[in-house]
Amino acid sequence: MAGAITLERIIALNAAYVRCIDHDAMEIWPAFFLDKCLYVVTSAENHKAGFAGGVIYADTRGMLIDRVTALRKANIYEKQSYRHIVGLPTILRNGGDTAECETPFLVVRIMHDGATSVFASGVYLDTCRAVGDELKFEKRIAVCDSSRIDTLMALPL
Amino acid sequence: MAGAITLERIIALNAAYVRCIDHDAMEIWPAFFLDKCLYVVTSAENHKAGFAGGVIYADTRGMLIDRVTALRKANIYEKQSYRHIVGLPTILRNGGDTAECETPFLVVRIMHDGATSVFASGVYLDTCRAVGDELKFEKRIAVCDSSRIDTLMALPL
Amino acid sequence: MAGAITLERIIALNAAYVRCIDHDAMEIWPAFFLDKCLYVVTSAENHKAGFAGGVIYADTRGMLIDRVTALRKANIYEKQSYRHIVGLPTILRNGGDTAECETPFLVVRIMHDGATSVFASGVYLDTCRAVGDELKFEKRIAVCDSSRIDTLMALPL
Repeated sequence: MAGAITLERIIALNAAYVRCIDHDAMEIWPAFFLDKCLYVVTSAENHKAGFAGGVIYADTRGMLIDRVTALRKANIYEKQSYRHIVGLPTILRNGGDTAECETPFLVVRIMHDGATSVFASGVYLDTCRAVGDELKFEKRIAVCDSSRIDTLMALPL
Repeated sequence: MAGAITLERIIALNAAYVRCIDHDAMEIWPAFFLDKCLYVVTSAENHKAGFAGGVIYADTRGMLIDRVTALRKANIYEKQSYRHIVGLPTILRNGGDTAECETPFLVVRIMHDGATSVFASGVYLDTCRAVGDELKFEKRIAVCDSSRIDTLMALPL
Repeated sequence: MAGAITLERIIALNAAYVRCIDHDAMEIWPAFFLDKCLYVVTSAENHKAGFAGGVIYADTRGMLIDRVTALRKANIYEKQSYRHIVGLPTILRNGGDTAECETPFLVVRIMHDGATSVFASGVYLDTCRAVGDELKFEKRIAVCDSSRIDTLMALPL
C-alpha cells in the first residue's frame, strides 16, 4: 500500500474514518490526522464567504485529542446515535504522496424512540498525505450544507 | 476475478446485493449466500447486549429460500418501495479467500403518495468467501441503528 | 486511464458528475455526455410501463446546453440547495470501451431555515463510453422511485 495515492486508498480512508466515529471509537479518531493538521467544521454559507473559522476549528492533533476528552466528560446524558454515509470520492489533484479530494457525506440521527431522520449533509474538502503505508488527513474541512449546525457539536463529522 | 479478495470485489458484491433487493429480484437473493451461512437482522441494542438472534434469523440458504417464498405469498397488498444506499466498505481482516468487512447502509421508503423518508440505517457485519470467481456471504449480520425494526420484516436488508 | 472500463473509472465518473451538480457548475454538466446521447429523468412507474419520455428528455448535448441556459434564466428566485449521494455502482455488461451500469442515488434538500430532508431517490441506468482517457455518458436514465418529480425540474439528476 505504500507509495502512490489511489482512489481505492481514498475510499478505504473515508470508510475507516466514519466507521471510527459511528463505532464511538473516538479515542482513535485523532490518529486519522497528521500532528500538524487542519480540521474545521463549517457551513457552506460561511465557507463561501471566506471565513476560515467554523463551529469546530483545530490545527493540531493535540487539539483533536483535547476535543475527544471534552466530549467524553460532557456526555453525562445518554447520546442519540448517528450514522454517517459517505458518497463516492473525487480526487482533484494527485501528487503521488499527497492528494486533494472531495467526498460528500450524509448523517442520519436515530432518536431513542427509533425515529430516524436526516441530520446533516455536506462535503469533505480534504488534503490527504501518505505516511508509510497509511493515509492521514493533513486537512479536512467538513462543509455542511445547512447553517443549522450548532447542535452538531456533540459529534465530529 | 478468482483469487484474492479486493476492495473492488467487496464493492461490487455490495452493489449487486442491494440492486437485487431494490429490483425485487428476491428469487436471486439467496444465491448471494453460501449453503451453510448466517443471516441475521437485529438492532444495535440487541447486538451490543450479545443476543445472537434477531428479527430475522437464518443459518442455511434453504431458510432464505423459504423466506422469499413466504414473502411472495404474503404480498397480497401492494408494496411500498424501498431504496438501499450502501456506503463505502471497510475490510477488517483479509485472509485471501475469506474476509471480514463492514459496510454502512441507509434505506429510504417511498410511499404511494410519493413521500420519501429515511426508513432504516445501520451496518452490515460480513464474512465474505471467494467461491471460484464469485464472492458469497458466509455471514451477513444487518445491525439496525434503530430498535423499531419490526416493520422491516416486509423486506430483507 | 485510456482503454478498458473499470469499476474504479465508473466510480470516478459518478463522483465527478454529482460533484459538478452540487457545486452548481452546471455549465460543465453537458460535457459529461456524448454529442449524441440520451438523458432522461423519469419515474419508476413510467419506466416500468415502457414510456420512453420523462419529465426531462434530451437526446443531444445541445439540448442539455439549452437546458442549462434555461435554468440560469429561470433562477431569479434564490435556490434551495441539494446534495446528491450516489451509492456503489454495478457494471452489468462491460464491452471494454462501452459499459452498461446501474448506480443508485439519493438527493437531500436543504431549505433556507436549515431543515434537511430526503428529496428524491432512484437509480441511474447508464451506458458509458470511453473517449480517449475520459468516460462519457452515451445514455443516462435517472429513474426516480417516487412519482412526485415535477418539482425536480429545478435541477438535473
